[in-house]
Amino acid sequence: MSTKPLEIEKTNLKNLNWPEGKICALAFGWHVDGEAGALAGEPGNLEHITARSEGAYGVTTALPRILDMHDKLGVPGSFFFPAYVAEFNPEIVKLIKRSGHDVGLHGYLHENVFTLSEEEERNIFIKSYNILCDVVGERVLGWSAPTWGVRKNTLELIAELGMIYDCSLMEYDEPYLIKTDKGQLVELPISPVLDDWPIFGMSISPAGGNGVNTSGEMACKIWMEEFDGMRQYGGFYTTTFHPNLTGRRGRLTQVYDLLKYMKSFNDVWWTTCQATALHVLSLLNHTSGGAMKG
Amino acid sequence: MSTKPLEIEKTNLKNLNWPEGKICALAFGWHVDGEAGALAGEPGNLEHITARSEGAYGVTTALPRILDMHDKLGVPGSFFFPAYVAEFNPEIVKLIKRSGHDVGLHGYLHENVFTLSEEEERNIFIKSYNILCDVVGERVLGWSAPTWGVRKNTLELIAELGMIYDCSLMEYDEPYLIKTDKGQLVELPISPVLDDWPIFGMSISPAGGNGVNTSGEMACKIWMEEFDGMRQYGGFYTTTFHPNLTGRRGRLTQVYDLLKYMKSFNDVWWTTCQATALHVLSLLNHTSGGAMKG
Amino acid sequence: MSTKPLEIEKTNLKNLNWPEGKICALAFGWHVDGEAGALAGEPGNLEHITARSEGAYGVTTALPRILDMHDKLGVPGSFFFPAYVAEFNPEIVKLIKRSGHDVGLHGYLHENVFTLSEEEERNIFIKSYNILCDVVGERVLGWSAPTWGVRKNTLELIAELGMIYDCSLMEYDEPYLIKTDKGQLVELPISPVLDDWPIFGMSISPAGGNGVNTSGEMACKIWMEEFDGMRQYGGFYTTTFHPNLTGRRGRLTQVYDLLKYMKSFNDVWWTTCQATALHVLSLLNHTSGGAMKG
Amino acid sequence: MSTKPLEIEKTNLKNLNWPEGKICALAFGWHVDGEAGALAGEPGNLEHITARSEGAYGVTTALPRILDMHDKLGVPGSFFFPAYVAEFNPEIVKLIKRSGHDVGLHGYLHENVFTLSEEEERNIFIKSYNILCDVVGERVLGWSAPTWGVRKNTLELIAELGMIYDCSLMEYDEPYLIKTDKGQLVELPISPVLDDWPIFGMSISPAGGNGVNTSGEMACKIWMEEFDGMRQYGGFYTTTFHPNLTGRRGRLTQVYDLLKYMKSFNDVWWTTCQATALHVLSLLNHTSGGAMKG
Repeated sequence: MSTKPLEIEKTNLKNLNWPEGKICALAFGWHVDGEAGALAGEPGNLEHITARSEGAYGVTTALPRILDMHDKLGVPGSFFFPAYVAEFNPEIVKLIKRSGHDVGLHGYLHENVFTLSEEEERNIFIKSYNILCDVVGERVLGWSAPTWGVRKNTLELIAELGMIYDCSLMEYDEPYLIKTDKGQLVELPISPVLDDWPIFGMSISPAGGNGVNTSGEMACKIWMEEFDGMRQYGGFYTTTFHPNLTGRRGRLTQVYDLLKYMKSFNDVWWTTCQATALHVLSLLNHTSGGAMKG
Repeated sequence: MSTKPLEIEKTNLKNLNWPEGKICALAFGWHVDGEAGALAGEPGNLEHITARSEGAYGVTTALPRILDMHDKLGVPGSFFFPAYVAEFNPEIVKLIKRSGHDVGLHGYLHENVFTLSEEEERNIFIKSYNILCDVVGERVLGWSAPTWGVRKNTLELIAELGMIYDCSLMEYDEPYLIKTDKGQLVELPISPVLDDWPIFGMSISPAGGNGVNTSGEMACKIWMEEFDGMRQYGGFYTTTFHPNLTGRRGRLTQVYDLLKYMKSFNDVWWTTCQATALHVLSLLNHTSGGAMKG
Repeated sequence: MSTKPLEIEKTNLKNLNWPEGKICALAFGWHVDGEAGALAGEPGNLEHITARSEGAYGVTTALPRILDMHDKLGVPGSFFFPAYVAEFNPEIVKLIKRSGHDVGLHGYLHENVFTLSEEEERNIFIKSYNILCDVVGERVLGWSAPTWGVRKNTLELIAELGMIYDCSLMEYDEPYLIKTDKGQLVELPISPVLDDWPIFGMSISPAGGNGVNTSGEMACKIWMEEFDGMRQYGGFYTTTFHPNLTGRRGRLTQVYDLLKYMKSFNDVWWTTCQATALHVLSLLNHTSGGAMKG
Repeated sequence: MSTKPLEIEKTNLKNLNWPEGKICALAFGWHVDGEAGALAGEPGNLEHITARSEGAYGVTTALPRILDMHDKLGVPGSFFFPAYVAEFNPEIVKLIKRSGHDVGLHGYLHENVFTLSEEEERNIFIKSYNILCDVVGERVLGWSAPTWGVRKNTLELIAELGMIYDCSLMEYDEPYLIKTDKGQLVELPISPVLDDWPIFGMSISPAGGNGVNTSGEMACKIWMEEFDGMRQYGGFYTTTFHPNLTGRRGRLTQVYDLLKYMKSFNDVWWTTCQATALHVLSLLNHTSGGAMKG
């Protein structure tokens, strides 16, 4: 089917069977960028205490509150960490894991791979993977690209390290398979609609950005529309939320209400990125022909 | 009437007679940019798998859903393709044509002509025209400018190739006529108000953009206001919607409701760009003086 | 009072007496930039037919509709023209004048004076003043700065030519007086809140801009808030609206409703910029001490 | 607790005891940038009369109205001044102080310290501190960073001059302590959510900016959400509002209503930045172990 000149082989999994007869799947995702976001965007920010503090808010102030919300509502989460952030905040990473949530990799210092040579990318990738596995205490199975940077060798690196999924691309509403020279990956697609950066993002240094110009209520309206659309059209739904943005006090109370709304439907599989990838793989391995509906 | 120093001769068709006594005309339009948008904006994106996947979503995921919506509601559509996208996705282009919709040309790789010499523009134009006619299986009759790029020789090229309409300019609310050295064109005006890019557009690479910061409901409110305004003031209405933006699950359900609202009025001619242009030409050819109302 | 290092002498007219015991004054203002906006922003746009057509819409399509709205509602308007636009569209300028509205000057090709030497500025100013007076058939009495460009010699030029008001600065909510080496001016302050560019503006070439991302209804909500605020705090209210933006069909119907709302209060003086300036001068000349309330 | 590579030692004061058993604290803050904002952003704006007038509006027109609002509602305020603005508007600064509000320092000409050498920063800091103390008539106790510029030596300068608080960083929802080589500071955290610049900000010169595209009502909705969130999660709330933006007539009436809403709850400590810092210090000095709740 895919004859387009994109040098990766991929297979869409339209009509995938979800567990327990659910019609769609939701994996609430957070990118815990912490100070790494500010530092990757502008190296001079190493001395910029305000810019770093704005990122740090996500880790030390918002993240505990977010975990508490997940706990209260019984909603599993997928938390992606730049290894730098995990390295200096190991306790919260361990707590996330103990609480039954996912932990995924998100670069070392939130590097966009297009700013790196392939060798630099490889070295940073392996180093960050090892650090994060170390903090977590077990193998990390998935990756999400900082600043959407993914090239062919990036996907190969993920597979080569034994990870099973990537969570960075956007072509389908359902998980899809990607064949790389180093093995197959499950792709868990993200969406600009489910990213809080365009809505709330603001760069402290360099000063600028478009965000902060609408309410948490309006943001949740956007995310609710996409949720309602998923219930109609099927597929997978994962968010790219940043604790320093959406974990602010007033916004999080809106997200709390959104989650309660979403939980009022019983046809949605509440899952994590990792559990989704494992589900896809199990369908492929054990039932082959039966992976797809009817 | 037109004494302004714009080196094209044009004639407004204020008070044009629409078929069946309708008071205005609506041609729902889509720009199926696919990966071409990302590639034209930044050639380095050839290796940027995420940026390409975000564009590809419009073709492989959103477009079938959009066609289904048009089918369910009985609404004709006008679909403009960069020839590159048609070349690698011929089946969906053929399906669109078989379903009674329009197909129009939109560059080869979504080139802005102001980045090309006139000779380059000419070569690309003829090549892309031939590819698209080939995929469609018949002559393509209209063009819409990628990134609003139109200069004098562009309009001449359109006429020289035997196309009958351009759908890129913005001076009037009604179709108008443009005289070029190579023949006359029907101009079907577009509008910034009816473009989804300023509302939903976001550039993956280079990272940036203003969009995604309002709901599908608000976008449809904007488009509904202009529809209501057209019913009051008359004229023509065509949208510049992008499947990768407005074809997202949640947004499309809002557009579905908008279309149902629009269909509740029986004084609107539901048409395509091509049918509009043919209507205008038939009025001019067969009734001359009678083309305009009272 | 003014000890700040701004090299212009100014006197605020807080508590100015409005005619007929009104508590505030409203002069609906339009900047009819036409193609001049696109051409001033990017000289290469001379060949950019789309960019020019987007500007031209304001003159040939929106302006007649706007005049009709003013006429229906009995609302006077103040229309500022780049002389270039008046030169090539003299009939509509004359019609505006005949209908009892104001015409003011707005550069020749919408030049920002900070891109000109003082000599260039002077030559363009005099040339454009003469052209506009010629089209209008009488002396033009006021000026509004393209792109907010005003320097000391600009104000002197306005006074030297015998104009009585400037409509470009923003320090007060009430008209104020400015003393220049060439005479005194009435300053009629504008406001970013009452400018439609940040809400609806979009640049066709170079492609970009933030606008078009909210409804006409929301824009009118913003302008209504400021109107309600004026009725509470007093002062003057003039809009910087652009026919090609706010004169779009759907938006204008919203403005129509806004005007009806505004007209439902009988404590507002409906006026023009010129009439406001003449009123201020008459108070100063004839009643001196009585110009201010109690 | 803080093992992160940020070269400042800090202690969060989670669960701080607020006076009178209140559950959270609110210090309404204003940055009276006046003309300094325009001049710091672009030195050429010295001759740009419009850009300067837009800033001046905040001081001469909006600030008296804002003080009146604070007075009517009995709400204390914290007003930060670039010393340049205080130097040329000493009366209003003295009035603020006499009315029982705070005055804090905000640079001399709104300088971002990252554009200065450490020596330049030091000279400007001391000069501006002396000017402001002189105008106020007593020692000024706090500082807020222009354009969020804070580096290690900045915090040392604040402490060295005997000031007791900084109001620029963003890591926690509660006040926190910062240890510098020159002494300890109370940090009163600000938030991007409570800054009006991303919502209403617009640069006159260079022309640009994203703001002015939503209503005062929507802005107040954003600020109300964060207030409601504070009442749920506890902590401190201070605004970064600019008189020239939020002090516009229509917006201020919305803020008036917001304040009335906020005042309807009796579990909020209405305070100033200075009083908050003094409270924190008194808890630390006199009750040590008792500074934190149970």
